[in-house]
Amino acid sequence: MFKKLVSLDEAKQIIARNFSLEPVGKENLQLKQVYNRILAEDIVAPLDVPPFNRSTVDGYAVKAEDTFGADEDRPLALKLCGQVRVGESPKVSIEKGTTAEIVTGAPLPEGADAVVMYEDTVQRENTVSVHASVSKGENVMKAGSDIHKGETVLRNRRMLGSYEIGVLAALGVIDVKVYKRPRVAILSTGAEVVEPGEPLPTGKIYDINAYALSAAVIECGGEPINLGIVEDESQKMETTLKKALSMADSVITSGGVSVGPTDIIPEILDKLGKPGVIINGIAMKPGKPTTIALVNGKPVFSLPGHPTSALLIFQLLVRPVIVSMAKRPAEEPRTVKAITRTKLFAARGRRTFVTVYLTKNKSDRFIAAHVPLGLSGAITTLSKADGFIEIPETQQFIDEGEEVLVHLLKPSLY
Amino acid sequence: MFKKLVSLDEAKQIIARNFSLEPVGKENLQLKQVYNRILAEDIVAPLDVPPFNRSTVDGYAVKAEDTFGADEDRPLALKLCGQVRVGESPKVSIEKGTTAEIVTGAPLPEGADAVVMYEDTVQRENTVSVHASVSKGENVMKAGSDIHKGETVLRNRRMLGSYEIGVLAALGVIDVKVYKRPRVAILSTGAEVVEPGEPLPTGKIYDINAYALSAAVIECGGEPINLGIVEDESQKMETTLKKALSMADSVITSGGVSVGPTDIIPEILDKLGKPGVIINGIAMKPGKPTTIALVNGKPVFSLPGHPTSALLIFQLLVRPVIVSMAKRPAEEPRTVKAITRTKLFAARGRRTFVTVYLTKNKSDRFIAAHVPLGLSGAITTLSKADGFIEIPETQQFIDEGEEVLVHLLKPSLY
Repeated sequence: MFKKLVSLDEAKQIIARNFSLEPVGKENLQLKQVYNRILAEDIVAPLDVPPFNRSTVDGYAVKAEDTFGADEDRPLALKLCGQVRVGESPKVSIEKGTTAEIVTGAPLPEGADAVVMYEDTVQRENTVSVHASVSKGENVMKAGSDIHKGETVLRNRRMLGSYEIGVLAALGVIDVKVYKRPRVAILSTGAEVVEPGEPLPTGKIYDINAYALSAAVIECGGEPINLGIVEDESQKMETTLKKALSMADSVITSGGVSVGPTDIIPEILDKLGKPGVIINGIAMKPGKPTTIALVNGKPVFSLPGHPTSALLIFQLLVRPVIVSMAKRPAEEPRTVKAITRTKLFAARGRRTFVTVYLTKNKSDRFIAAHVPLGLSGAITTLSKADGFIEIPETQQFIDEGEEVLVHLLKPSLY
Repeated sequence: MFKKLVSLDEAKQIIARNFSLEPVGKENLQLKQVYNRILAEDIVAPLDVPPFNRSTVDGYAVKAEDTFGADEDRPLALKLCGQVRVGESPKVSIEKGTTAEIVTGAPLPEGADAVVMYEDTVQRENTVSVHASVSKGENVMKAGSDIHKGETVLRNRRMLGSYEIGVLAALGVIDVKVYKRPRVAILSTGAEVVEPGEPLPTGKIYDINAYALSAAVIECGGEPINLGIVEDESQKMETTLKKALSMADSVITSGGVSVGPTDIIPEILDKLGKPGVIINGIAMKPGKPTTIALVNGKPVFSLPGHPTSALLIFQLLVRPVIVSMAKRPAEEPRTVKAITRTKLFAARGRRTFVTVYLTKNKSDRFIAAHVPLGLSGAITTLSKADGFIEIPETQQFIDEGEEVLVHLLKPSLY
């Protein structure tokens, strides 16, 4: 088993080269279920919206030319020949010199090409006096003026929010093809971890990673399958990884990838399929003991056991892969400029990530203050941190008061 | 039934004065289900994290003072008295002059207060030569150094993302009290609307609002109950509104609140409970025919039938109410400055909302271009629009090239 550290940038390149990042499939869902999903087809309008010429006011449907010249002093008289109600097919048609009462939203009867508003008319029995002229199309919303039949109205990969769902409803489309959410199996290893909710014997700690990583997977459009804790023993691990790979599109493990005698996962991954391990160790702090494999087309990420390290590697390397498998729009990395509050030191020869929280100074500039990693085991670190600063491999420190780029960790969700 | 138009600002004040906007309740969920929910209690740590002193390296647990003075030239010898494994309660205790092998993450045995790294030792049978001194606490993560027992670690109303869920897991908390999502019943009225998926007779259009509003309700943390289309007939409407009020925490109707003969909803709302209708018509364009009521403590919003108007009023007046009932953090209105591409006209005496889409010019400034409302019936308008510009009641137009504030319509979700 090779164990050659690669830089973070090399790791990104190796991932890009090896992973095809195709969507995991498509599925048809009912319109009520598609909120926040990704459209997997172009939507071509099967009908005009509106499907007919609609009146936009309450009044009288007319031939516009019958009103030409009408004003307050010289009203023109039209013969009332019926009424058009909303939601009904008109039972009348408008001949020269005739009109029909119409309400907002009702379809224009045949022969009519405009509507005179009530305010501009006086009705006496079967005669309507028109006190203002209208031009052709006035107070009418033409068929297809919102959406033309045959028009491509929503494109493949569009995220479906309330507006897009409104467009689909307008077209009567209730069966919608969307991309499947990638199923991501998540498991924790290590003799010291215990399932939250169980009693905690001396020497044990509760498993953080399976829960935190499951939530992170939802956050980027995946569907987590929390397989819980697997004993750090070769045969059991192989069985569980096989099961995980058979039921999911990707697998994330955490823990068990240390320098100790329990480093069994890379060997198993190599055995389970091709090409196997493609990255085994990254020159960064925290996050060094990270293994990444491709097993018969499925990405497997074996992250460090320390929660902060695991979540940082997730954000940097796993998240873009799941987002891409989910066919969600690629996320722009969100950054802000800030001034460091204290001098920050790098780990020798390794890309160092320093977690920081942000405040603002009197001049409204961001100040980045270090949130200590608590020896990289502290889960509270990341819940307090707003983002992180990268210190390149070649640099030994960042000085107090220096301007830096802070990569924001928390997507604003709503 | 009073029918006095109020301004948009008055409408906001009337809502603030009348609605208590209390959360609709709390519920206990399993940790696996709480992603993106709002915590409804302070979380006080029931234990230290880590629960014991942990070694952060592989090496030998020692009393620090036994190593003082040790260096390459003058190693000190300690008697090996056992081994501490990860996840197990130590079976040894460290007396003066003794040591025990320990791995990363394992609990420090009694009597030890530091760990010497493997690299700084040589082991020969039962004797360990220590080649470097360590200070008290070195290579040890102290019990409670991440979270102290009794510390309030997450506060009421915190949104639960991956980091917060990690903190709960670390504490072994799997039963979490969160605020209930407000249940919002949604119904559409009007003789012209047909359920999407059904055949579309002449004169009818598909119902857009129930679907678009349902998605908008999810977007602000509510749970929509889509009751579909209700006939615009007094008795049927009253029965449905009663049912909606009995099963939901809030009700949204759309359509049926026009100036025509079908304006039956306000009267029914006044009959169903106190104080009844509090707003009946808003001096704005679009959105004038909006009725807002409070029926026995439950907010009811009766929105215009035109989808664009309905969704705009939803964003302006309904969304903040649902967000507040869900106890989600109040949302900052997101705005950007832009330059108008064309002259924009206001409706006389009414607050006018002009939907716009944004582009950037060569100087990297936003340009706001009008998306015509399509006579306020067009659903595509809002799917194309990035935001809207408000023109005050007192102003007749905004000139081409003027700087304006654009209120962004689409929250960036991920």
